Amino acid sequence: MESVKSLFVAVGKLYNKSQPHYEACRALFTAAHSKLHRESTYSSYGCYAGNPVVPYHVFSLNPATVSRPVRPDIYISDPNELAIIHNEFMAVLKVPASSWTVENRVTANRIVYTAVMSVACCYDIWQRGSRKTPGTFFEFLMAGLLKMMFPTADFIKHIPLAAILHDKDVLESTAESQSQADDSENGDAAGVSTDLVIGVPNKRGGVVVPLKITTRERIVQPFAHQRILDSAFGDGVFKSLLVCISETQLDDKTKSVKQVCVPGTVKLFQKYLARVGGIYYCDVPQRYAAADMRSTINVRSIGDFFVDVSQALTDHDATQI
Amino acid sequence: MESVKSLFVAVGKLYNKSQPHYEACRALFTAAHSKLHRESTYSSYGCYAGNPVVPYHVFSLNPATVSRPVRPDIYISDPNELAIIHNEFMAVLKVPASSWTVENRVTANRIVYTAVMSVACCYDIWQRGSRKTPGTFFEFLMAGLLKMMFPTADFIKHIPLAAILHDKDVLESTAESQSQADDSENGDAAGVSTDLVIGVPNKRGGVVVPLKITTRERIVQPFAHQRILDSAFGDGVFKSLLVCISETQLDDKTKSVKQVCVPGTVKLFQKYLARVGGIYYCDVPQRYAAADMRSTINVRSIGDFFVDVSQALTDHDATQI
Repeated sequence: MESVKSLFVAVGKLYNKSQPHYEACRALFTAAHSKLHRESTYSSYGCYAGNPVVPYHVFSLNPATVSRPVRPDIYISDPNELAIIHNEFMAVLKVPASSWTVENRVTANRIVYTAVMSVACCYDIWQRGSRKTPGTFFEFLMAGLLKMMFPTADFIKHIPLAAILHDKDVLESTAESQSQADDSENGDAAGVSTDLVIGVPNKRGGVVVPLKITTRERIVQPFAHQRILDSAFGDGVFKSLLVCISETQLDDKTKSVKQVCVPGTVKLFQKYLARVGGIYYCDVPQRYAAADMRSTINVRSIGDFFVDVSQALTDHDATQI
Repeated sequence: MESVKSLFVAVGKLYNKSQPHYEACRALFTAAHSKLHRESTYSSYGCYAGNPVVPYHVFSLNPATVSRPVRPDIYISDPNELAIIHNEFMAVLKVPASSWTVENRVTANRIVYTAVMSVACCYDIWQRGSRKTPGTFFEFLMAGLLKMMFPTADFIKHIPLAAILHDKDVLESTAESQSQADDSENGDAAGVSTDLVIGVPNKRGGVVVPLKITTRERIVQPFAHQRILDSAFGDGVFKSLLVCISETQLDDKTKSVKQVCVPGTVKLFQKYLARVGGIYYCDVPQRYAAADMRSTINVRSIGDFFVDVSQALTDHDATQI
């Protein structure tokens, strides 16, 4: 596990210096994938009792040391197959997303899922305490891929909204409380910062990409942030695309998997708080893919996300802002 | 601890049946207060390094079993003194809040703090696992007091916003996901419900009273809910007054107390997300009482809250809505 952890630290250093970091991401998830493949058991756990039923696997060392649930039809478990599909995906990334086929989207979705789940399940099994690491890696990975797709775009990470707003009063309070030790975890910047913002040179605004492994009680955040941006800049200057992995949870008692969904909440926020441009998952929760959601919000795969973010940047470039 | 726990269950039953429950609240906090007084040590812990410095006490059994920090100048530790001041407060409650003196506000603040802290510290020491109990008791207590103050007002608790909005589409999704076991904790109703709404007969809207022991990362919720209500009904139909106990945290390493504040975030939300009518604390965080906050948001004591909520209901009654 020490080598996985040091590879994670290495990615973080490159990312924080804004240096190319995708190869380091690949080294990390390849090491994690290989460790899981060699040192754990990958086997069926149980199903999500949906329509259709969705089977899930887990990685385990013993009955008490079990990873989060994994979709075996999305996760690429064989290391050789992963290498081949990853090479295909690198070629796909060079093609304009507007001409991606359905197969290309499936490939993109499987690679992101396999990469993030490899790292997350490694930490689930061998480093339980590091709760935030999988989410941080998810951000590293997506930023790395998006930078390769859009080499001329502006990337801004973890922007405190106060800074985007250029609000002197808010900014000063933020800076001051960040400088206080007692604000370390609940600091103003951490509390109200977007994950990733992609801009177009010489244009105001851009595409905000909040990244969350699962949403849970944090689902309100991207909607609230979108509303703040709408209030400050007017509608349409910033567009949010929320990107997640899944909404799954193991149910140990029944040996089944739950997909924790709050369709009423999502509709409520989308209608009355702010409109986000879409929600994307590697493992799209069945409830969110249902027909009644479609009239309110677009919920699709991360394969579709790459196409939609490309379109959103093209649209943004064409605006007069 | 069994008697404290059964008194808590008893209050919950009355509250859920909308029966008078303040006497049961009093029995509970009196039992908790007495248990702490008899069976634990109440002594100095350390200070918040503010200007001025604020000393805090804790209840403890031994160095490893310590309660949350308590303000000895607000908490009434002597049982006889508590009984006397509580009787004074019951008399104050019968006087219209518009004529409350500064002393009356201080009394109200001390009683609420002592009651909530008694129950919270009991659970800190003897029932660590029950994380949500202190917050639930805070709601029981405030609802009990407010019902005695405003006997003719309409009280609604835990309203799913979807129901307030009468939005059929959102409502159906909410009802459906509430009926699913996998939604138990992150259910739609729990995710987007207000704590307490006080209305005036035959008037739309009212005063929303979110109650939180501390805000932490949940600070966004009351602002987001206010924005949803503004979007759906127009500004001013609902007014939110956020009521909290404190923002303190023990720092075990330095034996000091932190006041975890996010002034930049609060200003940001208040300016760009939605306006809440005020934030009230028993132990007002020093940073939020600073001059620069006042132009953005009203942060005062729970003693002041009783006066302000009374005024808000009078104002609401006089509107044409």
